[in-house]
Amino acid sequence: MIYADNAATTKLDDDALNAMLPFLRDQYGNASQPYSFSRSVKKALKEARETIASCISANPEQILFTSCGTESDNWAIKGLALSHSISWKVAVSEIEHHAILNPCKQLEEIGYKVDYIPVDKNGLIDLQCTENIKSDLVSVMFANNEIGTIQPIKDLCRVAHENGALFHTDAVQAIGHLKIDVQDLDVDFLSASAHKFNGPKGIGFLYAKNPNLLSPFICGGAQEYGLRAGTENIASIVGMSVALKKNCEEIEKNKCHLQDLEHTLLHELYNAGLNFVRNGAENHIPGNISLSFKDFEGEALLHRLDLMGISVSTGSACDSKNIQVSHVLKAIGLPENYAKGTIRITFGKNNTVDEAMAIADALIKIIGE
Amino acid sequence: MIYADNAATTKLDDDALNAMLPFLRDQYGNASQPYSFSRSVKKALKEARETIASCISANPEQILFTSCGTESDNWAIKGLALSHSISWKVAVSEIEHHAILNPCKQLEEIGYKVDYIPVDKNGLIDLQCTENIKSDLVSVMFANNEIGTIQPIKDLCRVAHENGALFHTDAVQAIGHLKIDVQDLDVDFLSASAHKFNGPKGIGFLYAKNPNLLSPFICGGAQEYGLRAGTENIASIVGMSVALKKNCEEIEKNKCHLQDLEHTLLHELYNAGLNFVRNGAENHIPGNISLSFKDFEGEALLHRLDLMGISVSTGSACDSKNIQVSHVLKAIGLPENYAKGTIRITFGKNNTVDEAMAIADALIKIIGE
Repeated sequence: MIYADNAATTKLDDDALNAMLPFLRDQYGNASQPYSFSRSVKKALKEARETIASCISANPEQILFTSCGTESDNWAIKGLALSHSISWKVAVSEIEHHAILNPCKQLEEIGYKVDYIPVDKNGLIDLQCTENIKSDLVSVMFANNEIGTIQPIKDLCRVAHENGALFHTDAVQAIGHLKIDVQDLDVDFLSASAHKFNGPKGIGFLYAKNPNLLSPFICGGAQEYGLRAGTENIASIVGMSVALKKNCEEIEKNKCHLQDLEHTLLHELYNAGLNFVRNGAENHIPGNISLSFKDFEGEALLHRLDLMGISVSTGSACDSKNIQVSHVLKAIGLPENYAKGTIRITFGKNNTVDEAMAIADALIKIIGE
Repeated sequence: MIYADNAATTKLDDDALNAMLPFLRDQYGNASQPYSFSRSVKKALKEARETIASCISANPEQILFTSCGTESDNWAIKGLALSHSISWKVAVSEIEHHAILNPCKQLEEIGYKVDYIPVDKNGLIDLQCTENIKSDLVSVMFANNEIGTIQPIKDLCRVAHENGALFHTDAVQAIGHLKIDVQDLDVDFLSASAHKFNGPKGIGFLYAKNPNLLSPFICGGAQEYGLRAGTENIASIVGMSVALKKNCEEIEKNKCHLQDLEHTLLHELYNAGLNFVRNGAENHIPGNISLSFKDFEGEALLHRLDLMGISVSTGSACDSKNIQVSHVLKAIGLPENYAKGTIRITFGKNNTVDEAMAIADALIKIIGE
């Protein structure tokens, strides 16, 4: 079996799992309780927050744990808007994940105004275009889940600030895979999801430069400085911190390895003379390879590869029930006869050169038939 | 160490943990992806949903997985209200958990109207009182986390329906400990949290009689029938289903055991002639013992017990940073010199008669000094 859908989810790192187990077994105390039994849990919570903060050059109190990247995105988009009047304006790119686009739709339904920023054929936002946008919050994803394109976040953030807007970035695909320094970037909010960087599913966080700007989206108890209620999911928080630290420490090493895998795969395909285009910008997430084969069907390619024991995606995981051309491929203007034949291969740190060769061989066989 | 704070959280059941491990190790596929590798995950998701549904006599498609009870409560209160106009009216009891009360406050801040239903000295809602309430949604907790009082949910639900309102119950403290049949009760929505019934932290669900009445609270991908986005937290969902099934199968056995523990503890305290009252109604969650000692401080009692290796609570876990008399003890009209001396002992299925004796002896020693 070859798993090459790491943008959909990743294998939980062994060290992360081992760090979780004590909190799934004996250290089950509620982190918000004051007795001795909860002390080790409180300590682990504090340390995990510090570890995660240090991975992105944040302060621990700027890290707010959530249940997933989607919750973080909903909080940033809806939580902020709903705590302001209906005149609060949001601007997002056309190629955001649905975790951003669908909250925007909900806001529009109740009367808020949302601007959609177009992208070029590589999925890159034009800086000049953002200069003319007047909004209260600009949200642009760090790197795209379908085509891997990395946006010029620091510049986009600067322009947003010059225009008086706050800036959020959905960094779900980027964090743990690209170096992120929130102080250098100067972003106001950043969303993350653990299972995209070899952490457990069901946990994420929202970075907030100034958490006081947030009103609680999920409210109740006093957890997360009163900003996100619910008993702390300590095992998963600890697992997330271990996975993120490990991935961040190995970013350069993993990047080189993933680029090797990319080159191996693409070299084979080019040599075989297949008719395809590769989507996304030159500056993309290492290991993310979106390929469009002319006059093929992505769904059929996926199933043929699956029969050969290879797991890849046709679009983003969330779109997998949908056979329409994805909004991302539409936004980059890919011709429909190519767009329909798109598959996304996303390598992870556990993939090998032999696996990249095997995927190439499988594709050459399928396309050549 | 004696852990007697099972209303705050419970130890993860060994069978539940063992059922989770394969999904934390090798079966890490994204449940929403169409390839073979995700088949076992999809199957486990389906079976967990069926298991949970059968525990409360629901249909599988009425079970929507969330990240916790607090999220379920927020969804029921805010999700419903925000998808209606500002004239949408909510009525809740005065002794709801903050996971209900704080969303209500947020709604009030933006102009919605919320009615608060009073309770008697045992924490019970007067049915007649609810008959006069005109609202769109009535939300009353199944059983109170601080004093254990079980509400007449079936009757309250009937009255709400007669008045044209939907009915939600926060069953976080009840489910897995009391028999719940949503068809018999006829509730429209019900919130649950796994870690209160020996499942993992960070997972819960919302039962919806008619899911079409809900608009997504956390939106993005198409998970949970398009009603709750975010990659499925499969390990925790499976753990929750195993824990709930096991607890539900043992409800009668556990109830008898917990009542034994209650009687043991109280018998000892009464025999020692201590000056205290027990809070809550005759019909309460088995094992929930809220005791108020005249002219004592709950916080001090908690710490003295903690030094003796016993973990109990002063109020709800979420209130533990707060030394004010809780809203529940205020609502039942407990005199302040008793209210301030309140501790909550909540036994779980793992506690023993010897432990109940030990807690009684410790209390007698502390109070007697």
